Amino acid sequence: MIYADNAATTKMSEAAIDTMISLLGEAWGNPSSLYMHGQKAKEVLEKAREDVAAVIGAEPREITFTSGGSEADNQAIRSAAELGRKKGKMHIISTAFEHHAVLHTLEKLKSEGFEITLLDVHENGLIIPAEVEAAIREDTCLVTIMYANNEIGTIQPIREIGAICRAKGVLFHTDAVQAMGHIPVNVAEDNIDLLSASGHKFHGPKGVGFLYAKKGIRLSNLIEGGAQERGKRAGTENVPGIAAMAEALKEAAAHMEENAAHQKAMRDRLIEGLKQIPHSALNGDAVRRLPGNVNFCFEGIEGESLLLLLDDKGIQASSGSACTSGSLDPSHVLLAIGRVHDVAHGSLRLSIGEDITEAEVDEIISSVKEVVEYLRGFSPIWRDLMEGKKEFIL
Amino acid sequence: MIYADNAATTKMSEAAIDTMISLLGEAWGNPSSLYMHGQKAKEVLEKAREDVAAVIGAEPREITFTSGGSEADNQAIRSAAELGRKKGKMHIISTAFEHHAVLHTLEKLKSEGFEITLLDVHENGLIIPAEVEAAIREDTCLVTIMYANNEIGTIQPIREIGAICRAKGVLFHTDAVQAMGHIPVNVAEDNIDLLSASGHKFHGPKGVGFLYAKKGIRLSNLIEGGAQERGKRAGTENVPGIAAMAEALKEAAAHMEENAAHQKAMRDRLIEGLKQIPHSALNGDAVRRLPGNVNFCFEGIEGESLLLLLDDKGIQASSGSACTSGSLDPSHVLLAIGRVHDVAHGSLRLSIGEDITEAEVDEIISSVKEVVEYLRGFSPIWRDLMEGKKEFIL
Repeated sequence: MIYADNAATTKMSEAAIDTMISLLGEAWGNPSSLYMHGQKAKEVLEKAREDVAAVIGAEPREITFTSGGSEADNQAIRSAAELGRKKGKMHIISTAFEHHAVLHTLEKLKSEGFEITLLDVHENGLIIPAEVEAAIREDTCLVTIMYANNEIGTIQPIREIGAICRAKGVLFHTDAVQAMGHIPVNVAEDNIDLLSASGHKFHGPKGVGFLYAKKGIRLSNLIEGGAQERGKRAGTENVPGIAAMAEALKEAAAHMEENAAHQKAMRDRLIEGLKQIPHSALNGDAVRRLPGNVNFCFEGIEGESLLLLLDDKGIQASSGSACTSGSLDPSHVLLAIGRVHDVAHGSLRLSIGEDITEAEVDEIISSVKEVVEYLRGFSPIWRDLMEGKKEFIL
Repeated sequence: MIYADNAATTKMSEAAIDTMISLLGEAWGNPSSLYMHGQKAKEVLEKAREDVAAVIGAEPREITFTSGGSEADNQAIRSAAELGRKKGKMHIISTAFEHHAVLHTLEKLKSEGFEITLLDVHENGLIIPAEVEAAIREDTCLVTIMYANNEIGTIQPIREIGAICRAKGVLFHTDAVQAMGHIPVNVAEDNIDLLSASGHKFHGPKGVGFLYAKKGIRLSNLIEGGAQERGKRAGTENVPGIAAMAEALKEAAAHMEENAAHQKAMRDRLIEGLKQIPHSALNGDAVRRLPGNVNFCFEGIEGESLLLLLDDKGIQASSGSACTSGSLDPSHVLLAIGRVHDVAHGSLRLSIGEDITEAEVDEIISSVKEVVEYLRGFSPIWRDLMEGKKEFIL
């Protein structure tokens, strides 16, 4: 079995699992409790906060633990919008290919009177910083642009965008769910005001994430209640999960350079191999992309069948993002980079792990080749293309 | 060490820990993924939903998994409020001693134009159903009353309140965080429309809870994003945590009768013992209370010192709820049942576990006696009381 869907979720690292298990039996107290057992849980919690902060160049008090990336995205954007509303600034800039946790929150804000500008991500899936600058208005309260895209893996010029926002006095949020633990992210150097991340995308547990908010930015509560997380996120803290996430993040940061180098080599080998399939195309920039991300369109086939047949061959991959699977609509990300519906339907995302081998990459290449060829043999669209009744796009 | 703060959090059961550990290594896939590994995670998720639903007399599709009780409370109340707003019904009925996840959400709704009626919980900490009926108006959209109180453990006449709400066509939500797994809760028999629960209060994991919403009630999203949980709660599902919670709930339900009988006997022994301390009083009704809850006020002392000295003696207890610890204000729950500030400050909550022994109960009694006596020796308030400069209340 070759697991090539790490963008959907990763397997927890052994160190993260060990951390979690040991805390389930030890520091299971309520960190808000005064007695020693509660205080031990609180120490574990605050150590995790320091560890996470250190990895991203933040201060511990700038980290709020959440139930995951979606919650962090919602809270970050809601908070910036509330701050904007108070100043009469109700314009937000984003992109058309953000995660739905961002896009659906923006849609809701639109229904509440906010104006949303979605920037073009162009054919290569990259934002042009000058276009962010041009879009900023007097009434802009927030720019929210993801660090790396969850489907095509393109890495945005976050530092430049952050610098523009800072110069213009506009808050800048980035959904760093896919980037965190895989490429260097430093909120100070990158001029980031608000950042969201999710534990299970970097070999930490599910159900845990964090929100970075630069000090001085007042967060609005998404979840009201107890005084946990400086009163900004109610609910007993999931200490074992949080500590396991911190452990996974430290591990990812410590091995990032070697992991990324290996993954990039494997990624590029995979891209080269798949390019040999006729009428195929890589989605998104070939260079400015996550070390583990490969995303292709194959003309004349349908993504879901491709996935199921690859699964039969022991290869686990995805079409669009896992969050929207089950939907018949083509990926909004692929449409945003200009792929037409027919082509977008035939997409394949392979998000390889840190430990993938050359032999596994070659197995993926030959399996995909075989399955694409097989499926094209049945496809009426492919027949039309071959008979010249339809024109090839790729 | 005697852990008597199970209302703050419980230790995970061995079965729940085993479930979680085995899934971290097995069903760690993303349940939204099409391939077999993802589908296995989905099966585990849906089995957990069936198990939880079965315990509370609901249908699986009526269960939405959340990050905990606070999130479930927020979402339940927000949803009912949105439905009310659409019909021009902007009045909500609750009580003064709800959990802050409820009270703070209601405060926010008040700032958005809702009118909130907080019912009296009387000296015994119990709602009178006729007073709910009398408070319901044409424009009432929701009644939200907790199943059992988190500090004094009083169990409300939920079934009667639910029947009144149903007859009047008003939605009824109950925060069942403290009740779930400890006393029988059946949403059908209890006439409940919306219910919140939290895994770590019944020996499940932290960071996981659930919201029951009777079919036909449209939930509003607190967290926008992916299509998880029928589009009502975005974010990759924490499958290992959810399955561990379901396991813990099944276990709690299976042993509820014997556990409750033992706990009640121990609780009553503890109450009898603590009553012997002069100028003390049990808070909340002696009979209609959770099997594991004991809550006392001791005149002339200060709760925090009491807790720290008990901790030295190996007894872990709390004053108010864990969620508000660190605050210098006296418990809003004790004020709601009419305790004056001075007395409310000297409170002790002992929430005993299912496995507590008679010897442990006797140890708690003698330790509390000793510590109360010791603290009164230093207390200027106690001196004033003894010298007749101040009048005893208890």
